[in-house]
Amino acid sequence: MAGDRIIVLAGGVGAARFLQGVLAVTPPADVTVLSNVGDDETIYGVHVSPDIDIVTYTLAGVVDEDRGFGLAGDTFRVVEGLTHLGGEGWFRLGDRDFATCLFRTLALREGRPLSAVTAEVARAFGLAVQIVPVTDDRLATVVATPAGRLAFQEYFVRRRTEDEVLGVEFDGAEQAVPAPGVLQAIAAARAILIAPSNPFVSIAPILAVRGVREAIMAAGVPVVAVSPIVGGEALKGPAAKMFRSLGGDPSAAGVASQYRGLIETLVIDQVDAAQAAAVQALGIRPVVTDTIMRGPRQKAALARVVLEAAGVSAVASGSEVEADA
Amino acid sequence: MAGDRIIVLAGGVGAARFLQGVLAVTPPADVTVLSNVGDDETIYGVHVSPDIDIVTYTLAGVVDEDRGFGLAGDTFRVVEGLTHLGGEGWFRLGDRDFATCLFRTLALREGRPLSAVTAEVARAFGLAVQIVPVTDDRLATVVATPAGRLAFQEYFVRRRTEDEVLGVEFDGAEQAVPAPGVLQAIAAARAILIAPSNPFVSIAPILAVRGVREAIMAAGVPVVAVSPIVGGEALKGPAAKMFRSLGGDPSAAGVASQYRGLIETLVIDQVDAAQAAAVQALGIRPVVTDTIMRGPRQKAALARVVLEAAGVSAVASGSEVEADA
Repeated sequence: MAGDRIIVLAGGVGAARFLQGVLAVTPPADVTVLSNVGDDETIYGVHVSPDIDIVTYTLAGVVDEDRGFGLAGDTFRVVEGLTHLGGEGWFRLGDRDFATCLFRTLALREGRPLSAVTAEVARAFGLAVQIVPVTDDRLATVVATPAGRLAFQEYFVRRRTEDEVLGVEFDGAEQAVPAPGVLQAIAAARAILIAPSNPFVSIAPILAVRGVREAIMAAGVPVVAVSPIVGGEALKGPAAKMFRSLGGDPSAAGVASQYRGLIETLVIDQVDAAQAAAVQALGIRPVVTDTIMRGPRQKAALARVVLEAAGVSAVASGSEVEADA
Repeated sequence: MAGDRIIVLAGGVGAARFLQGVLAVTPPADVTVLSNVGDDETIYGVHVSPDIDIVTYTLAGVVDEDRGFGLAGDTFRVVEGLTHLGGEGWFRLGDRDFATCLFRTLALREGRPLSAVTAEVARAFGLAVQIVPVTDDRLATVVATPAGRLAFQEYFVRRRTEDEVLGVEFDGAEQAVPAPGVLQAIAAARAILIAPSNPFVSIAPILAVRGVREAIMAAGVPVVAVSPIVGGEALKGPAAKMFRSLGGDPSAAGVASQYRGLIETLVIDQVDAAQAAAVQALGIRPVVTDTIMRGPRQKAALARVVLEAAGVSAVASGSEVEADA
């Protein structure tokens, strides 16, 4: 019954780095990335898709490694020009990065779906992996804070995740339908992986699209997540703070309870080995390994462990890791 | 009855260079530039206003002198990025130039008029001169050619003015009304100058806006044009070709007949001195001088002659010429 596709639910930086490992040990053409679009926003008049672009740039080997997003060596003349004229400049969008967003905006304005543009951009960057926004419809992550409901980029970039998060909503999720190919890819899955991304604002909006969670549960294949929390902290971003304010526990066990009922295995870091029993107690099999992705070797090693936990034997033929070496 | 304002009807490069001379010998705050908007176009999703921006950049001393438009030292990463993704790249819009157009686009989208944005951009570039688009409404120059009706930038940039021009139309001109301040500035004029711009596609669209031609004729002040044709050729652009195909004569006298009934004086180049009688025969007073604007000195000298012909004595206090030195 199982197909041959590896499905990866993905947010931004953590997911992109994890995917580098996956593509190092799996033929890229076998992998479908289901990308979060809840962070998408119109900024400077263009449609910004942060998670899609981070994954695309990272896998193409052109990401700005220091920032984790944007393009290496990019310039900022458009944003500087806007600021010079009195416009806003809080979102530091590079010029080539702007071009990607503008290309997307113009295509969307012509009536083409986000999924088609995303595939076209990935091809232009030389990628063989399939990157699919989970939906072509509007789905906007909104963060409820003491300062009010904030659009995600407002919370994340402009206000630097400093607001306490009281709740997370996905505007449009009830109307959003999966993009073409999403349900088919899941149905053709050999394994479904959840990247080490923020469960609340990166993975939850993917699962919020009608039918996606159900399709994953109906696929009848191993579902394996990688904990984004290591030693009680998120490697990147506000996940740990969100666990605290949303009532959970920033721990491997906390991640396990977020994904309870969906995953069968959670890969946790060796520093969290003591939590294996607590994960197990939630009915989820813990797999302990080094999850810190310092470089290509660690990324590939983590991917091998995760794929093995999903019953997939890794091959050595991955091609898209060299750029990261 | 006459006021104290100097009004200059202006197209692009030739007008901008002429205006440098005017501002060298006249207080910039006394000058109102009525700018052509017929070349405006939405390109790469942004509102491009070539003539307004050429005038603004030139007077601010930041224009790319080699191209005559755009900003000196600008980069082209946005257009290069679009091209890399498979988008079009025929309109070479620099990144900082793009920022100006994007700033304008975002302001227009907020419902602010073009005239307000234009003033704001001019202030940001440090200009005291008043630059006013002749209308805030849509007015699009369309060029009829054997290949069909072409949008102006299509004709001018993409097809490099290679098509024969069978006619020129101004879409929207009948509905367009003068921008706020245009008729008031004309009514407060001490003199009205027509820059050495293309009569068919730079000056005619200004005059096509309802009430503008009438206001100029009703102002009761000297109206002086500078011929953009020297020795049978346009210094820049397709004016001479247009004279030929539209049935006129690319000569000082040809320019005079285009402006017949509107101007009282035409300033023509010394190489065309022999045409003075032909100009005179059309009821227009010819003034012969060196109209080639090689540098700041020649620009100022031409401006002095033109202002004197309009009965205005030039002062030496112009401030916006240094950037050109």
